[in-house]
Amino acid sequence: MKKTNPAIFALKGTVCFSADQTHLCTYDNAYVICENGRSAGVYPELPEKFHGIPVRDTDGALIIPGLTDLHLHAPQYSFRGMHMDLELLDWLNNVTFPEEARYADLEYARRAYSIFTDDLRKSATTRASVFGTLHTDATELLMDLMEKTGLIAFVGKVNMDRNSPDELREISASASYEATIRWLEDTAGKYQNIYPILTPRFIPSCTDKLMSLLADIQRTYCLPVQSHLSENQGEIAWVKELCPDSAFYGDAYDHFGLFGGEACPTVMAHCVYSSDEEIALLHKRGVFVAHCPQSNTNLSSGIAPVRKYLNEGLHIGLGTDIAGGHSLSMLRAIADAIQVSKLRWRLVDDSLKPLSLEETFYMATMGGGEFFGKVGSFAEGYEFDAVILNDRQLPCPHALTAAERLERLIYLGENDCITGKYVSGNKLF
Amino acid sequence: MKKTNPAIFALKGTVCFSADQTHLCTYDNAYVICENGRSAGVYPELPEKFHGIPVRDTDGALIIPGLTDLHLHAPQYSFRGMHMDLELLDWLNNVTFPEEARYADLEYARRAYSIFTDDLRKSATTRASVFGTLHTDATELLMDLMEKTGLIAFVGKVNMDRNSPDELREISASASYEATIRWLEDTAGKYQNIYPILTPRFIPSCTDKLMSLLADIQRTYCLPVQSHLSENQGEIAWVKELCPDSAFYGDAYDHFGLFGGEACPTVMAHCVYSSDEEIALLHKRGVFVAHCPQSNTNLSSGIAPVRKYLNEGLHIGLGTDIAGGHSLSMLRAIADAIQVSKLRWRLVDDSLKPLSLEETFYMATMGGGEFFGKVGSFAEGYEFDAVILNDRQLPCPHALTAAERLERLIYLGENDCITGKYVSGNKLF
Repeated sequence: MKKTNPAIFALKGTVCFSADQTHLCTYDNAYVICENGRSAGVYPELPEKFHGIPVRDTDGALIIPGLTDLHLHAPQYSFRGMHMDLELLDWLNNVTFPEEARYADLEYARRAYSIFTDDLRKSATTRASVFGTLHTDATELLMDLMEKTGLIAFVGKVNMDRNSPDELREISASASYEATIRWLEDTAGKYQNIYPILTPRFIPSCTDKLMSLLADIQRTYCLPVQSHLSENQGEIAWVKELCPDSAFYGDAYDHFGLFGGEACPTVMAHCVYSSDEEIALLHKRGVFVAHCPQSNTNLSSGIAPVRKYLNEGLHIGLGTDIAGGHSLSMLRAIADAIQVSKLRWRLVDDSLKPLSLEETFYMATMGGGEFFGKVGSFAEGYEFDAVILNDRQLPCPHALTAAERLERLIYLGENDCITGKYVSGNKLF
Repeated sequence: MKKTNPAIFALKGTVCFSADQTHLCTYDNAYVICENGRSAGVYPELPEKFHGIPVRDTDGALIIPGLTDLHLHAPQYSFRGMHMDLELLDWLNNVTFPEEARYADLEYARRAYSIFTDDLRKSATTRASVFGTLHTDATELLMDLMEKTGLIAFVGKVNMDRNSPDELREISASASYEATIRWLEDTAGKYQNIYPILTPRFIPSCTDKLMSLLADIQRTYCLPVQSHLSENQGEIAWVKELCPDSAFYGDAYDHFGLFGGEACPTVMAHCVYSSDEEIALLHKRGVFVAHCPQSNTNLSSGIAPVRKYLNEGLHIGLGTDIAGGHSLSMLRAIADAIQVSKLRWRLVDDSLKPLSLEETFYMATMGGGEFFGKVGSFAEGYEFDAVILNDRQLPCPHALTAAERLERLIYLGENDCITGKYVSGNKLF
């Protein structure tokens, strides 16, 4: 993505961003300034020192920080919204694994990944942590296409050497190791915006030997890590069988040093059924939780106790988990997170009150954004990721506040409401 | 709506409709015939007897029966997707009642209802059972505007004479009675497609005296009835207090003869917490249940045991319940019904298995359609309500079956996928 933007410019509109986990800042007809790719603050009037800089006037549209999708599977985009009648393990074996096997065919991968990256580019997502497949070539192709979108993303070649069909299993731990090294060497220094992330699929897919080798790679290349954790009760029981020496699921990653810590930034998707011990370790190691409410609903997994995680001070963001989740929309993920938290409160545990719009918006912006650094806000110094949302498609007979407009767009915004996007100061459209 | 259609014509495309509660029929590149406003069947090739009739070729789009929205509140459309942080009774008092009071102002009503009816016209909904407000004039205006959409709908002036603020309460039972008579006389014979429906808001809003007077009106004018039932535990407790002689909530309607039976077709929204006794009476009286999954989630009400209602043979359809529900999309209502049924199965009662796509599609078409007669199918003799769905916005790298395309549109279809609509043979667009 060539930088063609001016070093300094402003967007004018109704600016909304999180001050912190419980406060939303809104400014009508305000200016948010981008200077060298970072926010130089939000102002009700353009300060004198900025007079003369280019201004994009959005005509009253909403301007929000870009949204971070902390967990999604690019190869599964091709069957999003289909085969929604299965639970996790059956869905993996009957739907997901056969589809992912097709990405051995680079022509198929190009066709499928082009559709995915086109749609992701047009979405409100500015940062993402993405699973590819186990295929080195297809994953490199995915990274090439992702680079063209202008998003900043982690992309992982998946590692899996057990408990999956022949056509979607690496033949040995060392073959998986070597393919991973090749992938890292092939792509080293190749991209401006796309970074590799170590991606053991989940414990059931990776032998101990493979996990040890991946830990070597993690340390050698200083890679971040993404995987799945405590999504489904059947899965958790299986991990217990596979790893009798682990005290809990997360401990099985931690055993290999692949569970957070300063030298190993880690994002774990789901955490629907994390035990208190697991929560304590997530906290201790600074692991990011990717809460994926739509996927957890579609696959009948359950509802993660996000209120508890917020109370415990965990790092937490939102993920679409394409294609356990069917929608690529991170706006929808915000609404879904609120909705399932209400059902959990009503049906499971009324001591954990529902999530608010402020909290879930925070999770989708600053919460997940932190995995990428100083990302997800317009406070001064944050990387300038911005999305322009137009709500002209949603006429209303009375005047609305900025917060009401934002809430309505989160619940009702369709693709066509996204009319502008910037990533780290670069204009995508 | 002037009839400008030919008496006989065909639509060509991928035709999908329910054979029954568990079977979906799909036909690629088929013809569905409309003759004098009713389906004359679906054919893989155009039969010789129909040669020469006008054919609208949808270029491979999906053609499904029109969807019936069994429960929604027109005046609440203005705040859909906002103020989503309250439970039912607080939400009524703090958000809904103040907004509905504004419809005393006919100019406001015109502005608001025009937005509502414009959007409803463009949606996949072909039939609806709609609440207005207590205002006679505004409700007549709503009926005028509804008539222009071309949809066939029941519209109700709401009755409420207690437990609501001064500005949204009729001053006495007899004033409510008289306003209702005026409304019925004003609109008698005025519309081709819009019918009045008696609409006591819910038990807490209506004195016994008002309920008795409404029962007189129901019998005199042979009106159908719509109201709310067993939506929220606080509401149910309140009804128990208000009606100590009623065995259960539904019994309080039944006491006045406003709970189904052959001479009193009735639709009751929600039924999240219906007791076995209440279910038995719903069944005995042939009352239609309007299942509103999105609203029951947003207002933290809970999840209705729809599987149980299907097992018991209740009449059941789907409702958006605007604006407890935020989305006017009945496609979304289908997906929501599946999703919450999975969470209920996982979190509440694993003896009631999740709803299938076939079952929920049936509920949105034939299930709710039956409240309007022979509606919701392309089987011969059904009224010809049809919606054309274009999925070009959802490219896919591999070929899809008709059922997969339908599932994907249900989960992902946005407003722009709806490219054609017919109601009882009349082309809307």
